[in-house]
Amino acid sequence: MFFASDNAGPAHPSIIEAMATGNDGYQMPYGNDTIMEKVRDRLRVIFEAPEAAVYLVATGTAANSLALATYCQPWQTVYCSPVAHIFEDECNSPEFYMGGAKLTLVGDSDKMTPDALRAAMGHEARIAVHSAQPGPLSITQATEKGRIYTCDEIAALSAIAADLGQPTHLDGARFANALVALGCTAAEMTWKAGVDVVSFGGTKNGCIGVEAVIFFDPAKAWEFELRRKRGAHLFSKHRYLSAQMLAYLEGDLWLDLARQSNARMAMLAEGLRKIGASFVQEPQANMVFARLPRATHKRLKDAGALYYLTIGELEGDDETELLTGRFVCDWSLPEAEIRRFLDIAAG
Amino acid sequence: MFFASDNAGPAHPSIIEAMATGNDGYQMPYGNDTIMEKVRDRLRVIFEAPEAAVYLVATGTAANSLALATYCQPWQTVYCSPVAHIFEDECNSPEFYMGGAKLTLVGDSDKMTPDALRAAMGHEARIAVHSAQPGPLSITQATEKGRIYTCDEIAALSAIAADLGQPTHLDGARFANALVALGCTAAEMTWKAGVDVVSFGGTKNGCIGVEAVIFFDPAKAWEFELRRKRGAHLFSKHRYLSAQMLAYLEGDLWLDLARQSNARMAMLAEGLRKIGASFVQEPQANMVFARLPRATHKRLKDAGALYYLTIGELEGDDETELLTGRFVCDWSLPEAEIRRFLDIAAG
Amino acid sequence: MFFASDNAGPAHPSIIEAMATGNDGYQMPYGNDTIMEKVRDRLRVIFEAPEAAVYLVATGTAANSLALATYCQPWQTVYCSPVAHIFEDECNSPEFYMGGAKLTLVGDSDKMTPDALRAAMGHEARIAVHSAQPGPLSITQATEKGRIYTCDEIAALSAIAADLGQPTHLDGARFANALVALGCTAAEMTWKAGVDVVSFGGTKNGCIGVEAVIFFDPAKAWEFELRRKRGAHLFSKHRYLSAQMLAYLEGDLWLDLARQSNARMAMLAEGLRKIGASFVQEPQANMVFARLPRATHKRLKDAGALYYLTIGELEGDDETELLTGRFVCDWSLPEAEIRRFLDIAAG
Amino acid sequence: MFFASDNAGPAHPSIIEAMATGNDGYQMPYGNDTIMEKVRDRLRVIFEAPEAAVYLVATGTAANSLALATYCQPWQTVYCSPVAHIFEDECNSPEFYMGGAKLTLVGDSDKMTPDALRAAMGHEARIAVHSAQPGPLSITQATEKGRIYTCDEIAALSAIAADLGQPTHLDGARFANALVALGCTAAEMTWKAGVDVVSFGGTKNGCIGVEAVIFFDPAKAWEFELRRKRGAHLFSKHRYLSAQMLAYLEGDLWLDLARQSNARMAMLAEGLRKIGASFVQEPQANMVFARLPRATHKRLKDAGALYYLTIGELEGDDETELLTGRFVCDWSLPEAEIRRFLDIAAG
Repeated sequence: MFFASDNAGPAHPSIIEAMATGNDGYQMPYGNDTIMEKVRDRLRVIFEAPEAAVYLVATGTAANSLALATYCQPWQTVYCSPVAHIFEDECNSPEFYMGGAKLTLVGDSDKMTPDALRAAMGHEARIAVHSAQPGPLSITQATEKGRIYTCDEIAALSAIAADLGQPTHLDGARFANALVALGCTAAEMTWKAGVDVVSFGGTKNGCIGVEAVIFFDPAKAWEFELRRKRGAHLFSKHRYLSAQMLAYLEGDLWLDLARQSNARMAMLAEGLRKIGASFVQEPQANMVFARLPRATHKRLKDAGALYYLTIGELEGDDETELLTGRFVCDWSLPEAEIRRFLDIAAG
Repeated sequence: MFFASDNAGPAHPSIIEAMATGNDGYQMPYGNDTIMEKVRDRLRVIFEAPEAAVYLVATGTAANSLALATYCQPWQTVYCSPVAHIFEDECNSPEFYMGGAKLTLVGDSDKMTPDALRAAMGHEARIAVHSAQPGPLSITQATEKGRIYTCDEIAALSAIAADLGQPTHLDGARFANALVALGCTAAEMTWKAGVDVVSFGGTKNGCIGVEAVIFFDPAKAWEFELRRKRGAHLFSKHRYLSAQMLAYLEGDLWLDLARQSNARMAMLAEGLRKIGASFVQEPQANMVFARLPRATHKRLKDAGALYYLTIGELEGDDETELLTGRFVCDWSLPEAEIRRFLDIAAG
Repeated sequence: MFFASDNAGPAHPSIIEAMATGNDGYQMPYGNDTIMEKVRDRLRVIFEAPEAAVYLVATGTAANSLALATYCQPWQTVYCSPVAHIFEDECNSPEFYMGGAKLTLVGDSDKMTPDALRAAMGHEARIAVHSAQPGPLSITQATEKGRIYTCDEIAALSAIAADLGQPTHLDGARFANALVALGCTAAEMTWKAGVDVVSFGGTKNGCIGVEAVIFFDPAKAWEFELRRKRGAHLFSKHRYLSAQMLAYLEGDLWLDLARQSNARMAMLAEGLRKIGASFVQEPQANMVFARLPRATHKRLKDAGALYYLTIGELEGDDETELLTGRFVCDWSLPEAEIRRFLDIAAG
Repeated sequence: MFFASDNAGPAHPSIIEAMATGNDGYQMPYGNDTIMEKVRDRLRVIFEAPEAAVYLVATGTAANSLALATYCQPWQTVYCSPVAHIFEDECNSPEFYMGGAKLTLVGDSDKMTPDALRAAMGHEARIAVHSAQPGPLSITQATEKGRIYTCDEIAALSAIAADLGQPTHLDGARFANALVALGCTAAEMTWKAGVDVVSFGGTKNGCIGVEAVIFFDPAKAWEFELRRKRGAHLFSKHRYLSAQMLAYLEGDLWLDLARQSNARMAMLAEGLRKIGASFVQEPQANMVFARLPRATHKRLKDAGALYYLTIGELEGDDETELLTGRFVCDWSLPEAEIRRFLDIAAG
């Protein structure tokens, strides 16, 4: 009963197999392997972006930090939500890669609104050389709270950034989960909505450890390559990153896995609702924040369920007090585990 | 006939298999997987260092940069040879991680001497607040030219650094190749010789992409963890790094693979010598720089042999001019390929 | 009628004279001048801190950035108010000097409260290696809104930081203005209240350009010296910084000048109140944010009064709409100018 | 008898007076003072560069670090001589400002040659993404050994950099000394010889602490302003930097002072030659490295002469052994002091 994260389950067997097939003979190192050529071609087709610059790194934080650094000067500030992974969960990695740029928090929710963004950007733009200068916008899709921006919402935000001459970054650690939930194309969710660079996640959705960084403006390519090398994120045996990504894309495995984890979440949410749980926000992808009585949490934890309490402490006397838990479903979660979990939760 | 590098061959089948066995069920992320516990235990035994702090990253440059940054203040300078990988081949990654520290080049060879080190360190120490302050010593073992420091040589260098209160880092991208050549223990080649932190390479010696960083002083552990995360080098699905490393260590695979690549080099060198090649330096591990006439190089390249010319250009009229090539043997290189190469070289 | 800032008026004649007296003959460079010895002695007496490490730099931003960098690791975050000069007005200089550390905003006012600080620090401390680690607290005294922390308030905040093992920095760009308003000693307002390092301002209070950085823990001295040099803030002809600071301290000039600017503000505030202005906060030092009708602002601006509108735009039809202006009095402001300003304001 | 440096003598009385005249009334802060307009105009005339972007900072290290950072990416390397101030005497400040870029040492002398520069640049350009990328060239004029590049020599070097698309920086801490020695125009020694940005020194040549940074390409202006602010080098009371520089330029004071210090050096050198001293290099500006017997040095030091021994130790038995001293003449050095020094040296 593992609901703690989607970074703890196994990789999909096809990804593991790809390591073996990619292992054949010699391959030029440092991204010059022949598998990478196929990856590049495939992602350009998926994104309908024949000129896009496509790179692979092994961690989502590397993808985000390197993508942002390529677009943000050290005296600028990145606009993001107050629960953005780049702000909360990367131990100042973006600031490190950007040479000391700031992150400016927009609004008070996981989903930024145009008004909040306009307010934040207006503030920075005001005081000439003294304040941090406006820099890129970074949107997380799906958000860290499991919600999804519509393509129109992304377009509305990116347009505000573009008005200040600033690009838009999409942190797509759960890109596939959002895409299948929206039912749109990768192009619609990105460059057609004003996105300039995407962190295209593989790791959380069934890979071993691989993320693509996709620049729709190929003029950024060489700088990114130098930044990746300087950040120590260029793999010598790059073929194994390529092999993962190729297997992930082949036969739309990436979409299938995302549909599966979203479906598991839908099943879990329905069950939780039935036993009276309320949700901080309606789940739209593979994550939910649900309120359950302390007694229920105790029962679940005692039975070995793994997940994080985000509001409230397990210890306490009031068995009816509602505590909020974060529940994430990864692609590999068996339905039987969800049923067992719900049975225990039902008491 | 691939002699260009030891980063282009396949991973050993046991490493690939380990990805599958490591893929079973849920594992806590971010280095808290149970496989890592075994890796830590095993490396502590191998290094006879029960207190050592042990971490994994995916690239050698990350291992070097993070290890050095943990020991080097931004106003200091690292002492290394003029052909050190950290100086020549990491695109300012050490400087990036160290916040703008310098690298001071010691002597004019791949192997630093005590006299050259003393001269370099004396220079920096002289001018109070104005000059870069002395920082760590970094030794590459085996060197970038395929040579090996004896344990006594390492001890002599580290003692000079220690006299200035500075630690010693060992870049062990080819640690195993050096160890089997010397026939000593891992402890003798490191902490018993005054080494404080090791980049313990796996990638070049048959892994997919994994390097251990081993601090003999566990007080550095927490700072390293924060630096690794901030550098975006902490894997969420860390289990796959652990699994590689465990398989690499089990049954002394790491030593077997190094013995194999060194043996291939010995076979190659003997053959080259027979056809009249001279060596810049006697090969001691799995690399040699050999002088051959232009005509021989042309024949080899025409036949598809892959390696780098480091001195001289292939194009040219004087067929007898000696050009220097770098030849590296990885563990997977078939003996038949060496024989074929030598046959072609013999003309 | 210059009320725009206290960084635009002349230096006090004694400071100017000191440049001439300091100009005599040769003086050892880089802080080894004999005048600096006197400055160090004098500040140690004033702060009742015979062991304090005392340094001079030329700008307040340098004082803040260097002081914070000495205490803050790149993976940490500094706690400050959302209007802190280090956050709003230094163009990412602290982040640059700290190697990419964050600033975490505490509460929503210029004066931090213990509750707000506790909430902010608790948040950061929560998520292990993933989030920014807790770092120093930075308090501005007087605040950027012209208010003053009591010594008890400072002590309450610094105690919370100390509980997390973190030091407290005081941005004292207007240190003297606060001190004379409180009527306490420099020791009471700093180390006796838990402050570890002070940016002791001279520039805004009648100097040409000099700020002292005072560490109560002398163990930080050498690191600060290296950071100052590396930041390019070590003056070769340091004697002229020393001469300014010595003249500033002699005969309590610094206190007299602060009393004078505070008194001017009191006079201005009383006059503004009489003509019906309301204040965002009661002025406690030499700055006030006052609400006046648009018509009044127009009259003042037309007459040449210089100050910033912080809320509202001068252009507009509603002559009675209240717009907020920021008014600062420096030591040199003639009383006659204030009277003239008030006459115009009265209409 | 102070020959240790040209950073320890008094400022010229005109510079001190300028502090008083610049002190009149209110002046807009942060470089918007009216004096700065005159400085800008004057320097544009002197350099025959009506579009040049002109800025002031207080230290030579700040001028160099900020100028280089504006032109050098963090993954590049700056080419300079092995005795360059930026390499030897700035405690990694350039690396700090450049975000971890390297400095590559060219040749083995204070004056770089085209051949040495070509060799160094060729080396870096070779290895694709792995090595530091070529960056700006930095020439010190006059050199740290007191020698001078002719305009043709500067042009020859800058042309090599330009061939690689790289700009040329001139560290002109002793710009005036070089200019009067060459008898050319400021334009001839800079942009007409291919120089893109100049650190134009005032401090060593009679000012209190002021250096101009002059970009001949005004497109660099805004980035430099942001870098200066972020580096904490933007003075609020900037008028006092402007006042110094204006006085320095008025009536060609800067040229007169340089002629005076050069003439003092010529007098010293002639005297030293007469008593048998040999010079490491013929002095061309206001500095010489002279070999004198240990006995002579002892006599001079005993009599209170201040200067640095750069080769050899004062202590020693062999009274005839030649030790090298560095002797610098600043503008204020009295001729009588030189005569006294020579008398003592003569024995």
